[in-house]
Amino acid sequence: MQRLGILGSTGSIGTQTLNIVDQHPKEFSVKVLSANSSLELIEKQIKQYNPEAVCLVNETKADELKKKTKGKIHILSGYKGLDEAARWESVDTVVQALVGNIGMKPTIEAIHARKKIALANKETLVSAGAVVMPLIKKYQIDLTPIDSEHSAIFQCLKGENVKEVSKLIITCSGGPFRGRKIHELEGVTKEQALNHPTWKMGGKITIDSATLMNKGFEVNEAMWLYDIPAEKIDVVVHPQSIIHSMVEFVDGSIMAQVGHHDMRIPIQYALTHPNRIKLDIQPFDFVKAKQFTFEQPDTKTFECLQMGLDAAAKKGTVCCVLNAANDTSVEAFLRNEIEFLDIQRTIKEVVSQHKNIKHPEFNDVLKADEWAREETLKILHSK
Amino acid sequence: MQRLGILGSTGSIGTQTLNIVDQHPKEFSVKVLSANSSLELIEKQIKQYNPEAVCLVNETKADELKKKTKGKIHILSGYKGLDEAARWESVDTVVQALVGNIGMKPTIEAIHARKKIALANKETLVSAGAVVMPLIKKYQIDLTPIDSEHSAIFQCLKGENVKEVSKLIITCSGGPFRGRKIHELEGVTKEQALNHPTWKMGGKITIDSATLMNKGFEVNEAMWLYDIPAEKIDVVVHPQSIIHSMVEFVDGSIMAQVGHHDMRIPIQYALTHPNRIKLDIQPFDFVKAKQFTFEQPDTKTFECLQMGLDAAAKKGTVCCVLNAANDTSVEAFLRNEIEFLDIQRTIKEVVSQHKNIKHPEFNDVLKADEWAREETLKILHSK
Repeated sequence: MQRLGILGSTGSIGTQTLNIVDQHPKEFSVKVLSANSSLELIEKQIKQYNPEAVCLVNETKADELKKKTKGKIHILSGYKGLDEAARWESVDTVVQALVGNIGMKPTIEAIHARKKIALANKETLVSAGAVVMPLIKKYQIDLTPIDSEHSAIFQCLKGENVKEVSKLIITCSGGPFRGRKIHELEGVTKEQALNHPTWKMGGKITIDSATLMNKGFEVNEAMWLYDIPAEKIDVVVHPQSIIHSMVEFVDGSIMAQVGHHDMRIPIQYALTHPNRIKLDIQPFDFVKAKQFTFEQPDTKTFECLQMGLDAAAKKGTVCCVLNAANDTSVEAFLRNEIEFLDIQRTIKEVVSQHKNIKHPEFNDVLKADEWAREETLKILHSK
Repeated sequence: MQRLGILGSTGSIGTQTLNIVDQHPKEFSVKVLSANSSLELIEKQIKQYNPEAVCLVNETKADELKKKTKGKIHILSGYKGLDEAARWESVDTVVQALVGNIGMKPTIEAIHARKKIALANKETLVSAGAVVMPLIKKYQIDLTPIDSEHSAIFQCLKGENVKEVSKLIITCSGGPFRGRKIHELEGVTKEQALNHPTWKMGGKITIDSATLMNKGFEVNEAMWLYDIPAEKIDVVVHPQSIIHSMVEFVDGSIMAQVGHHDMRIPIQYALTHPNRIKLDIQPFDFVKAKQFTFEQPDTKTFECLQMGLDAAAKKGTVCCVLNAANDTSVEAFLRNEIEFLDIQRTIKEVVSQHKNIKHPEFNDVLKADEWAREETLKILHSK
């Protein structure tokens, strides 16, 4: 029985993790749940999974929940509560499915508490890879990616020697605006940007998929996770999103992980690896799929991808700045305050003003993050 | 230093194996070479690789070679010589790249001599899988497939538990006549049948690829190699032959092995696994490749594939009969004695007359082989 702590249990990854728990009641139990403020859904989850502790980041909602649960379970709150949830004693595996930079600290807490970590939160590695990965190695933590691309690479590397890798090939759907040139991106709406062609995901990550920043982040994550330099990581557009990513080896052989767009596959594998257990899913039908196509990504139009590649090549605090500037800009776009193209324009401006610290401490990362968010807001408000 | 004995060194797989030896002189040395009768090429190979022993199956050619080499190396001859070559003492790894059923006996010799075996010869498993595989298990022999499809599956299974496999998916180029209906196969020429769209291979196997018998054989081989029942093995047509085969697991995840049509990749991997070493090969370019397509195989037109699937489901001597009847028919086709469609018609007739022995001894296999060859010739001569 693997005891889970799910940080971000009301989000897309969190609810799919609970679907896996439902399918395998003998394999998994839930000890901790956490959400930002979704009181109603978390109450349902409490009833169904009977956790020992629940964290709501929103203090008011946490108070409300405390009253309702009448001391029957531990109610944690705020970012401190999230840290406590991450190191909760009876938990074996932390499913870290938080959104944004708030995921960094709980990941470090989980490492120090020697938890196994299933990581869906990109920002932890994009922003703080330089800080987190040495800890992972030092304490020999079992860190497994949930992102479909990194899970694919993880599966392709199974039984292999990472020294025999010649290239990682990260596939990219191209997002809803694939094939468009820059002038065709002027004035695209939030609804168009949120209409991802293949994957159903949360709002923020869907916008990142439309700008291709998501792919830029993934290059950074892969670089940290597998200790592979950025120049050995290729991005190839594969609009059907069936090949989730690949690894090329020195002998010319390429391993690929393939399947439905169903995040339950990588989530479950992160929990059960190196074993695989049954998942209630239709077998993939290649004849029905008919074809897989491949294209070069257009990094001139989708500058976020180019910025992601550049940051990965530089490493250091610039990666954190890229993420923070993106966070702040995407939030503004989702509030209809700026145009779609303003996202990449703004990030470019912020990044150009940053003085990179190549080997940062965690404090440098936090400072860079704060600086970038302020700088982004300044630029956005001056428009 | 891995010391090789290459059975079939003048053929397509043999010469490509030597190309790998050329690229890695510190990794491999050649102790034994064998050919059927290609005196000129084997003399060149002797000069270049300085083996301890050479076998020519053709006795006259062997005598000629004996005179020329003046006792400097051991010259073996006939099928007995092939057996001796297979168990040659200083050899670590036997590359078994013989063509046809003559490969069965030397494989068994190599097993008894506890050699590592890199197997390119399909017939060994198709005809004698029921005899060979228990020996492989009993003596814990490291048997690795060289066939691109089986090497792909072998690589997809790396680090995996075969009990967690839900399906093997063998890809198939479809051959030069893909898409044709039965009446469109009437009167196709030898030259058309020998013009394979993706792979450059020997004559016999190229015809087997045109009839799809090759794929039928591969289902049988895969069944024996991985101890997977025939009903869990799918064939999907993938005309570009870039995905070499796949494995689907119980969690819905599919691993695929991908790359150029270059047999040196599976040959080298069979020698170096679980490690990979550099191979001088252009990286595969997905953008240039543009697309992979998939289709259902047409087993009504290409009855050889259906017969292969049926034989795999039945197991036993029928598999050997299928192979022997195919051998004899394809030889007749290559001598322009029969039409392309006569191949499948003749095999069908022979198979229908055979009484299957489900759990054969090696002697049963040899008898079934002999019977099938005679029966095939009878049918062919009566036409």
